[in-house]
Formats: sequence, C-alpha cells, structure tokens
Amino acid sequence: MMVPLLVAFYYGDPLYPFLVAVVVTGLTGILLSYRYKEADEWKIREGFAIVAFGWLAAAAFGSIPYMLDGISPVNALFESMSGFTTTGATVLLDIEAHSKSILFWRGMTQWIGGMGIIMLFIAILPKLGVAGRQLFRAEAPGPTEDKLKPRIRETAKILWLVYLSISLAEVAALLLAKLSLYDAINHTFTTMACGGFSPYADSIAAFNSPLVEGIITVFMFISGANFALHYRTLYTDRNSLLKDDEFKFYSFIVIAATVILTFSLWNSMGETIFNSFRYAAFQVVSITTTTGFATVDFNLWTDSAKIVLLAVMFVGGCAGSTSGGIKVVRIFLLIKYAQRALFKSIHPKAVKPIKFNNKTVPDDVMQAIVSFVVIYLMIFGISTGLLSLMGMDIMSSLTSSIATLGNIGPGFNLVGPMANFDVVPFVGKLLLIANMWIGRLEVFTVIVLLTPEFWRR
Amino acid sequence: MMVPLLVAFYYGDPLYPFLVAVVVTGLTGILLSYRYKEADEWKIREGFAIVAFGWLAAAAFGSIPYMLDGISPVNALFESMSGFTTTGATVLLDIEAHSKSILFWRGMTQWIGGMGIIMLFIAILPKLGVAGRQLFRAEAPGPTEDKLKPRIRETAKILWLVYLSISLAEVAALLLAKLSLYDAINHTFTTMACGGFSPYADSIAAFNSPLVEGIITVFMFISGANFALHYRTLYTDRNSLLKDDEFKFYSFIVIAATVILTFSLWNSMGETIFNSFRYAAFQVVSITTTTGFATVDFNLWTDSAKIVLLAVMFVGGCAGSTSGGIKVVRIFLLIKYAQRALFKSIHPKAVKPIKFNNKTVPDDVMQAIVSFVVIYLMIFGISTGLLSLMGMDIMSSLTSSIATLGNIGPGFNLVGPMANFDVVPFVGKLLLIANMWIGRLEVFTVIVLLTPEFWRR
Ligand SMILES: [K+]
Ligand SMILES: [K+]
Repeated sequence: MMVPLLVAFYYGDPLYPFLVAVVVTGLTGILLSYRYKEADEWKIREGFAIVAFGWLAAAAFGSIPYMLDGISPVNALFESMSGFTTTGATVLLDIEAHSKSILFWRGMTQWIGGMGIIMLFIAILPKLGVAGRQLFRAEAPGPTEDKLKPRIRETAKILWLVYLSISLAEVAALLLAKLSLYDAINHTFTTMACGGFSPYADSIAAFNSPLVEGIITVFMFISGANFALHYRTLYTDRNSLLKDDEFKFYSFIVIAATVILTFSLWNSMGETIFNSFRYAAFQVVSITTTTGFATVDFNLWTDSAKIVLLAVMFVGGCAGSTSGGIKVVRIFLLIKYAQRALFKSIHPKAVKPIKFNNKTVPDDVMQAIVSFVVIYLMIFGISTGLLSLMGMDIMSSLTSSIATLGNIGPGFNLVGPMANFDVVPFVGKLLLIANMWIGRLEVFTVIVLLTPEFWRR
Repeated sequence: MMVPLLVAFYYGDPLYPFLVAVVVTGLTGILLSYRYKEADEWKIREGFAIVAFGWLAAAAFGSIPYMLDGISPVNALFESMSGFTTTGATVLLDIEAHSKSILFWRGMTQWIGGMGIIMLFIAILPKLGVAGRQLFRAEAPGPTEDKLKPRIRETAKILWLVYLSISLAEVAALLLAKLSLYDAINHTFTTMACGGFSPYADSIAAFNSPLVEGIITVFMFISGANFALHYRTLYTDRNSLLKDDEFKFYSFIVIAATVILTFSLWNSMGETIFNSFRYAAFQVVSITTTTGFATVDFNLWTDSAKIVLLAVMFVGGCAGSTSGGIKVVRIFLLIKYAQRALFKSIHPKAVKPIKFNNKTVPDDVMQAIVSFVVIYLMIFGISTGLLSLMGMDIMSSLTSSIATLGNIGPGFNLVGPMANFDVVPFVGKLLLIANMWIGRLEVFTVIVLLTPEFWRR
C-alpha cells in the first residue's frame, strides 16, 4: 500500500482512493481466509456473493474520485467499473484535461483489478466450481499438483510476487525506451492488467515509437498467458509454457491472426508491408489479450481488416491471466468437443475422451465449459439486441457488447478505439456496466445471483 | 409426377427437369428401402453419403434448365441449390424477364426440396442418429409411439398426403383471394417449403394485398411447424400442437418478436400502428420460418428494427417442418441446459434432468444438440470471416452467411430482400452454395464427409 500512497501525496490527491484499495484488499483477505468445504452449498453461495458484491463495492467506492472531479455518477461508475474489471472502455471526453493523479488512479484501479482477477481465477473460482476446475493448473490433479504451493494464502503471495516482478520489468523496459516514470508506471499498470486505459486520448499512438510498441506488445502477450505457468517458468521448469496446450493454441491464434491481418491491411489499405505488420501485430495482440490499446484508429480500416479483430474479440486470452473473453482453453475444448461429436456420429458406440495437456477432461467440466459459452453468447445477444432497440447501430451495439462483456475496451463505429462510450444512452451505460461486471467474474458468479435458487433457504 | 409434367407440356418446357425429379424420387426411394440396423457403422456411413450426395446431385441436375436459359454455371448451381434446399436466395438479375416455365420450375424445386426435408427429418435422420432422436416425435418412445405409423414407407406416404393436403388448401385460399392459378400454385410451392422464391422481384409486395399477406402468413406459420404434429392434429388428436413444448415456444417467439418489431417500426420509422403491425407480423413469420418472402424492403429499416429480424434468423422454425435454421427445439433445450448449469453451480451434487414434453432428454441427445449448435456457429463464423476477407462488408457477410446456412434467403445490405446475391464474388458464391447444402442437411450429414474417419476402412 506504500507506493501508491506516496504517489498520491506527491500529487496532492485526496485519500478516498485508498479507502477503496483497503476495501478490496480487505475483501480479498476475508475471502482467502475462508476454507470452503467442497459441496457445502451454503459456503458456495456465500463465496459467490462475496466475490460478486465485493467487485461491485470496489467499483462503487472507486467512482468517488471521479465524481469529485466533476464527472456524473453514471459516468464515474462506468469508468470505475471499467477500471476494476480491467475493461478499459472510457467515457472521459477529454482525457488529457484530467489531473495526473486522477489518471494515475484510473490506471491503478486496473492494476489492482488485474491482480484480483488472477487471484480469483487461480485461487478462488476453482473452490466454487465455476467453469470447471480443470482450467486451473494450480488445482489440477497429477504430477503438477505440488508444483504450485497448494495452500491458498501461499498461492496468493507467490502470484503477487510474480505479478509485481513482471510489472517492474516492464517499468524498467519502458524507462529504457525513454518514457517518463509516470508514463512508464501508468502504462505498466494497464498493460499488466490487460486493461487498456491510457492517459492519452490517442492511446499508444501518442508515442509513435516502434520500440515502445514492441515492449508493450511483449508484455501484453505475457499478461494474456497463465500466471501460474509464469511462476513455474520462472522458478521450476523453463519449458512450462511451451508444454501447455492452451499456450500453444494462444500463440497459434496470435500468429495466424497477425499474418492474415498483415496481408489484409497490405492488400486493402495500401499500406507498406512493414507498416501493415507493425499495425497488425500490435492490434492483434492488444485485442486477443483484451487489453484494448491502439496504435492506429482501426475503426477506419476496411471491413476485411476489421473482421480479423472482431474474430479474436470472441476468443480472449488464457485462463489464469488478466485477460478477459471466453478464453483460449474454452475455445480449444469446444473445438475438441465438436470433433468428438462428428466422430461419434459415425461411431455411435465409441468412447472417445477429450484430452487437455494429456489428461482426460471429465464430463462435468466439459458441461460447465459448454454452458459457460452458451450463457456468454446469450448475454452477448441480449445486450446487442437491447442496445440496438435503444437506437444504436448494430455494429456499435454488437462491438460495445462484446467489448464490455469480454473486458476488451474499444469496439467499432461509435465505440472505436479513438472514440468514446459517452455516446451510449444512459440505460445502455448501465447495461454495459453490468456486462463488464458479469464478464470479469466469469459470468456464473454474477448470473447465479439472479436465480431464485440462490436466495432460497 | 403427373401434375408437373402436364404443366411443363402446357408451357412447352424441356423435359430435363423431370429427369431431376426422377433422380430425387429415386434416391428417396432407395433410402427409404434401407433398413438401418442401429450402430451398424458401415450402413450409417452409406446413409450419410446417399443423403449428402443425393441432394448435391439434385442441385446439379436441377441447374440444367437454368443453364439452358443462358445463366452461367455457377449462378445456375446457386439458384438450383437455393431451390432444392428451400433457401430462396436468388442470383437472377431480372426475375420477370425469365420464362414462366423456368420460374415455375424454380418454385417446384422448392416444393420437392420441402417434401424431401420433412422426409429426411422425420424418417431418415433419426436412423442416422443426427442431432438426437428425441427431436423427432415420430421416433419418440412412450405413449405417442404408435400415433404415427412406425414403418418408414407408411410414414413417408402419410407425410406426403399431409403436405399435399395443406398445399391444396393454400392454393384454394389464394385462388379465393383472386390470384391467378399460376401465381397461386407457384406461391404455394414456395410457402409450403419455407422456400421464398417468388416469380416477382418485389416478392409478396407485388400484390399489395393484406388478404394475400394474411393467407401466406398463416401458411408460412403452418409450414414452420412439425408436420408429424400436423398429421396428428388432422387425424388423431386436435390438441397435438397445443400440447407440444416446441410449438408453444415457437408461437411465443413469433408473438414476442412481432410485438417488439411493431413498436420499433411505429417508434423509429414513423409508420402508423396498423402498418407497423402489418409489416412486422409478415416479416417476423417469414424470417422465423426461414421462408424469406418480403412485403417491404426491410433493408431500409433502422437498425433498431433490423435487429429483431437478425435475432430470429438465429432461431428458425420447428424440427420436422420445412423450415431451416438452428430450430426452436434446440434453442429451447439449450436454454434449459444453461439453466441447469446455473442450478448446478449452487447445488453441485444435485441431479436435475432436462425435460422436453414431460420426458427426460438423455445426455447423449443433449450432447448432440449442443455440438450441433457449436458446429453451426463455427461454420457461420468462418463463412462470415471469409466473405469479409473477400471484400464484402461485415453486415452483408454476416447476413448472407446466416441467410444461406439457415436456408432463409435474404439478408441485409448487399443481400437485402429486394437485392440480389449476384454481387457476391465467385468464390463467395461457392461458399454460400456449400452453406445452403450444409445447413439444409442438418450440418452433420455433410460435415462428417470432411472427417478422415469417414473415409477410413
Ligand atoms: K481491456
Ligand atoms: K427460405
């Protein structure tokens, strides 16, 4: 807590923000001290409620500094939820007009949110059985079990250390690339969290530096991968990442999308091949990892280039990372599930288990993953429909829905990377705030609160 | 075979078309005479191959009359596949310029295709285990089993009779509404098949008659419901439709979408409430049943109205009807599947079967349904991506993909209801032809042909 306090004093910022930080830390602490007995239904409900309302409370408290800065309550809540969920969608009309301390706070909410989400994904959600324990290497049975310390408090400390170490490495790299300390820290906050808030309206395009773009691309890519694997790579087995099915598929998606987008930009936009690659690589990594930084206004691209970004919006990064979206592992397993169905339609009586990292994925885990995607797409569809009925065009409705539900940030048209979510109608903003909340907490955590079963004694 | 032969002689049409009709009938005959032993893997493969290549052969033979009329081979195949799959997407630039007999043939391909698809869905696919036997009431176990004659040849005869009877009723109704015999028969062909080809470029708007629209709306709605239920309603139990979960949900979707669209048109397009309802009801029924007729150029609507049609494009009509799309029963069961997942996240050890018409849906059927939707959406996504990369705008790519895969017909933008698929690039047309074929044969039938397992001894 010391570093941000010092920064705040340095800029003469009010202390409210730290109230929030204390609340978040406190809640995480309470949560970590819980020892859920599995299948204890009451404990599971409490867990859902603490996580869901904890994040909501953080967003509510976190909106206070914005309101003190003269921003309307709904916009303040939007910006704060966008921070803590590491979405990065902004309603600030003139970003540079806001004080440095507000923009620092804005970036810091993402860094806190990012740490929270790694914790949630690796240490808490598996206890609640959300979306299948198999997704979480820390919980996986077999030879890897003892690799990451089993006790939840120690896991938390280890992940905190890994997150902090990689953050410091990025700050150092950005300082070497001649960024100011303020810019280096603020962009590290938002890169590490796959957050995407930038203190500049032009995002990373403001620096116009291939070196800065390269550094940020590398750290976005790292932040979009599993932090439990980063721990193992750093401390136990250098090849942990390369052995992982999800990481391999994640790398494949990023490379394939970059190649396609490079050719599309080169062909349809008349860019040089170098510039096409430069724009393609950054934008693909930014959108796949759901960071949402931009080095170009991709809203001005032709549809044949936009479609590549639209496609990766529906994938997202890896489980156990700070990224949002459906997640690579779920897409990977869904493809295997479809393959098995085709196989079974020819061999109806054959038994063909679905494998992930050489282990069989149990049927109930597969069911949880499929249900996740079904509910995710339903919320996406309903949100798109409602925004359209409010008068937004279909492409803006569609991309603002996926950009908030997937915690990406920018979309196309009205909500493009150099545009602003302030154009969304009031009720639409509330809907998008809900999307960010639902998406960040892996859907189930929030949606179960809406079921009558949840409230029944 | 006698009626179309007479018509052809009357208009002096070449006899090629009837070669095709003979091929189709012949293939259906071969298929019907098969007695698949379940789980006999070789017989299953043969079944898939006969159905898939049979439809392809029908489309290929059926394109001959168009080619003789001076249409390019790819356009002729497109139009013919669009006919036999009852899609109704057209590449004819000046429809009225073509001869009456060609347009009659065009409508008749849909009527033949529609009968074929009812047969396929109710009598053949269940034997192949596609997408779950539970979908097909004729095959369902329990008290209803003997309601529809169990023997496949008798089933075929019964369905043929029902299809013919309802067709005759529509011809009679349209004659009473003062349509010419030619128009009445041709529109009956394309209504009953949920096909949507019209001999007029302006589709049903050409008549500008609320009475004609009303009649066609009713028969589209009937054609989008299960023909096995129509048989029972006519011959055994008048309340068969009203007792059916799928029909109830289908009716709910049509009513809800009509209400929303009426208000949207009234609010955003400045129409009178009566005209809003008139346009809304026809267009909703036309798109939900995947017929694709239009009484207005809905491409000119605001996005807040278009979104309603876009939503129902992803639903489609009922299983065992002539409609395409994902089908109401699959959406119904998918929602129940998602509800169960939410329930299970609170009660991990609870057992909660999914019910349809008061019967438990077995797990393997549920798996088949989920896999169907997954593969369907993947093909939709890939198709949209490829068309965009070919230079089509995203909305045209998206709607032409769903309009062909769902056998709907028209989409938005370049492929709107008063526009034409001729603008699609050459390779794109081949892709859309594949979409129609894949979508019409319930995806699996065609996609299994692409798996190495299919060809392995
Ligand atoms: K983001
Ligand atoms: K159609």
